[in-house]
Amino acid sequence: MSKKERTAIQPTREENYAEWFQQVVRAADLAENSEVRGCMVIKPWGYAIWENIQKALNEMFRETGHRNAYFPIFIPKSYFEKEAEHVEGFAKECAVVTHSKLEEDGKGGLKPAGELTEAYIVRPTSETIIGASFAKWVNSYRDLPLLINQWANVVRWEMRTRLFLRTTEFLWQEGHTVHETSEEAMEETLQMLEVYARFASEFLAIPVIKGEKTEGEKFPGAVNTYSIEAMMQDKKALQSGTSHFLGQNFATASGIRFQNREGEFQHAWTTSWGVSTRLIGALIMAHSDDDGLVLPPKIAPSHIAIVPIYRDDAEREVVMAMANRIVESFKGARIDDVRVYTELDNRDLTSSERNWYWIKKGIPLRIEIGPRDVASNSVMIARRDLGPREKQSVEMENVVDYCLKTLGEIQKNIYERALKFRQENTVKIDSKDEFYAFYTPKNAEQPEIHGGFALSHWCGCPDCEEKIKDDLKVTIRCIPFNQDEEDGNCINCGAQSKRRVVFAKSY
Amino acid sequence: MSKKERTAIQPTREENYAEWFQQVVRAADLAENSEVRGCMVIKPWGYAIWENIQKALNEMFRETGHRNAYFPIFIPKSYFEKEAEHVEGFAKECAVVTHSKLEEDGKGGLKPAGELTEAYIVRPTSETIIGASFAKWVNSYRDLPLLINQWANVVRWEMRTRLFLRTTEFLWQEGHTVHETSEEAMEETLQMLEVYARFASEFLAIPVIKGEKTEGEKFPGAVNTYSIEAMMQDKKALQSGTSHFLGQNFATASGIRFQNREGEFQHAWTTSWGVSTRLIGALIMAHSDDDGLVLPPKIAPSHIAIVPIYRDDAEREVVMAMANRIVESFKGARIDDVRVYTELDNRDLTSSERNWYWIKKGIPLRIEIGPRDVASNSVMIARRDLGPREKQSVEMENVVDYCLKTLGEIQKNIYERALKFRQENTVKIDSKDEFYAFYTPKNAEQPEIHGGFALSHWCGCPDCEEKIKDDLKVTIRCIPFNQDEEDGNCINCGAQSKRRVVFAKSY
Repeated sequence: MSKKERTAIQPTREENYAEWFQQVVRAADLAENSEVRGCMVIKPWGYAIWENIQKALNEMFRETGHRNAYFPIFIPKSYFEKEAEHVEGFAKECAVVTHSKLEEDGKGGLKPAGELTEAYIVRPTSETIIGASFAKWVNSYRDLPLLINQWANVVRWEMRTRLFLRTTEFLWQEGHTVHETSEEAMEETLQMLEVYARFASEFLAIPVIKGEKTEGEKFPGAVNTYSIEAMMQDKKALQSGTSHFLGQNFATASGIRFQNREGEFQHAWTTSWGVSTRLIGALIMAHSDDDGLVLPPKIAPSHIAIVPIYRDDAEREVVMAMANRIVESFKGARIDDVRVYTELDNRDLTSSERNWYWIKKGIPLRIEIGPRDVASNSVMIARRDLGPREKQSVEMENVVDYCLKTLGEIQKNIYERALKFRQENTVKIDSKDEFYAFYTPKNAEQPEIHGGFALSHWCGCPDCEEKIKDDLKVTIRCIPFNQDEEDGNCINCGAQSKRRVVFAKSY
Repeated sequence: MSKKERTAIQPTREENYAEWFQQVVRAADLAENSEVRGCMVIKPWGYAIWENIQKALNEMFRETGHRNAYFPIFIPKSYFEKEAEHVEGFAKECAVVTHSKLEEDGKGGLKPAGELTEAYIVRPTSETIIGASFAKWVNSYRDLPLLINQWANVVRWEMRTRLFLRTTEFLWQEGHTVHETSEEAMEETLQMLEVYARFASEFLAIPVIKGEKTEGEKFPGAVNTYSIEAMMQDKKALQSGTSHFLGQNFATASGIRFQNREGEFQHAWTTSWGVSTRLIGALIMAHSDDDGLVLPPKIAPSHIAIVPIYRDDAEREVVMAMANRIVESFKGARIDDVRVYTELDNRDLTSSERNWYWIKKGIPLRIEIGPRDVASNSVMIARRDLGPREKQSVEMENVVDYCLKTLGEIQKNIYERALKFRQENTVKIDSKDEFYAFYTPKNAEQPEIHGGFALSHWCGCPDCEEKIKDDLKVTIRCIPFNQDEEDGNCINCGAQSKRRVVFAKSY
């Protein structure tokens, strides 16, 4: 079988990575564009991944003392105007509600009517509207810390959109917390970054780099922004979660004041942090291959596809009996806290069609059962993280043990594969020429292909950051944690520097 | 103790039911009004109830073959205009997005800018936007049935709002399904009404009447609307869930066509059905008392408050040891499929303050532990559905068994109490005078107090329905299922009638 025939996704990653991504999404039936500008429809297989992300994160948020709540979707324009940097950051791309009804336009259609006295903004993020509630809830240091999370839809009027990665409407969670001291708020900010990093590696099987954003890349209104950055298979970075130390900026804007232990009134210290349906984009781009989606078992909507094969009623009876026994044997099975689901697929399609259907959907394991398997009391099991032709014969009595063990191995394997890929494509660069060469495409037809992450020195000056961005479309993804001080020279201007930062092209 | 002192909620139900409702919501810290017109903030205890509602319904929807998905929040004006009755029903109260950014207004503020070529409506319900996707997904009878559910926020610009019962933005689920035949679509419509009725009685402990809406009360664009109706403690009806048979109306409007088994193209048959955060309003008004919220254990965010009582460090040590042993003993406990949670409350407040805190929050059981309980190796347990002073002494070794059994009893008891209340306040009325007297307040200061549900004959004519509505603000809640044919005369015009309907004042 030629390589071309083997491949379910056209084009391949090498041929055209951006188009490959769209085709993987389509082949796995995860989502599609709607006719509403930049808004996507998340289809059941994609939405089930999101629900699993929610489930796992909810557990982690609860363990760290957070509670879920829900705040209005509309932000009065006056709230929005309160924090100068914030409004500057979001005013250029927001949905504005100006009317409260439609009435006949006299031409057989409808026109907006009932103009509002104050326009509302559909939330692009909720610091200002949640701040208005927090200002009422917080009166004394005894009310602190206040630890709230919200699951919601938000809207940002993006000019160029792409399924999951950048859409006008997207789903996310946004944590909002209030603290008595700057130190506690900073501790919370870093704790939630750590939660995100742990979630990305343990559930999504994506290794991430934790670090601080530069002044130019931080959240509008934040004092410090921290992020987790992941490498996709085209060697670009994808910011996968952010945690913001907001200082007293939003507390001042919203009037979140409390009586401290000395009996004096002061502004509180706040944080916010979020991850979104973008994580599904990260998941797809980190692990999938030219056969389609590859899902980490801990986040997959379902785990084992069972494909019975028979040619007549007699074969059907024995094969289906065995298939049903397998389904039955997985009732209540779990990997860690995650329930294991099976899909018995006896649709009226060839076994190859059914197999490829599940390969493209990224189901971690496939079990084929034919009359010969019944005779030998064993089945053939294929792992999605290996080639589609690699199958293992497993005795019936060992099927559950084998599958549970292997699901754990797949989770580990795809994490390690992603980690190795990142390590192989992350280079310390100390020469400007080398840096420019690293980010210069070798092939004019594929301008996106480049070297990967560069760990290089940066003097800390915004001009140097800007110059590199202008020249190469390369940005500082973060100033990574846990690095030793090291003398060096800024990759742009040559000035002295004490630390390396992570440079990359990004989504 | 006088009755007045005993009561945590002011006013009582009898004194002012509407205000009592607001005060129960406030005392339990479930939600509050925001400064955004008609939008509420759902606080953690209220949102946790909603999450439990979602969990239970998701399970029931999944068992009946439905899958969750997500569709855009914005509906292009042109989609909205496609179904005439539908737009007529919703155009008068919708949020209209007309601009995509804000820019400086020259007076130090911001004004809407970037006018859209086509206005968007924030979904008041999603038939038209989901229909646009379904039109693409459905091509052949092999694609049917298509069984989708969405959890989402929706917006209806209501003139008069009340927490949970009627808010501008609310949270809900909306099921949308497509079928090959009228019969299958009708079967689905009635199946989902049955799911709602079962959910209301088994989880919310609210008995409901299932029936069909009259022409005048049905969903805009539906062929038939069915609802479940519950009686609140002020004897008014609350419509708690609706299921719509949409015929081919929306399939025609959205172009949902398929090739049938004969190879011909035809429009499909669709349904939609929904319940919302209004259910939390129903829950509060059906069960709560003058001490505050009463929660059915199967939907309560937490089940057992443990209130340790001590005066010094020595007492603290033994009491807390026992309290912790109790917390530990409930790890993994369940009633049916619902996990049992405990709250150990050793805040620096009096035991009375802590007890009342949990009474007002509606926690089903409270366990008090003092030094004397430690000595006798038993604890005092109070049930929320009984009076606050009624307590039962339970030996330590029986605490878990007693609590699990009692949680089941509370669930049953509050259901039966609500059923008895409805039965006592539902009357067959055959005389017009009696009917008018039934709905005429005895006391001018409390115009809301009236008789309850009337089962009376109706000839089927909209004018009679309208007359009663105009005179008494009483509507036909539904034409109930499962009634025998019975000869009678219309309560308004005296014309012949074969059936009784449910009349009531309603929310």
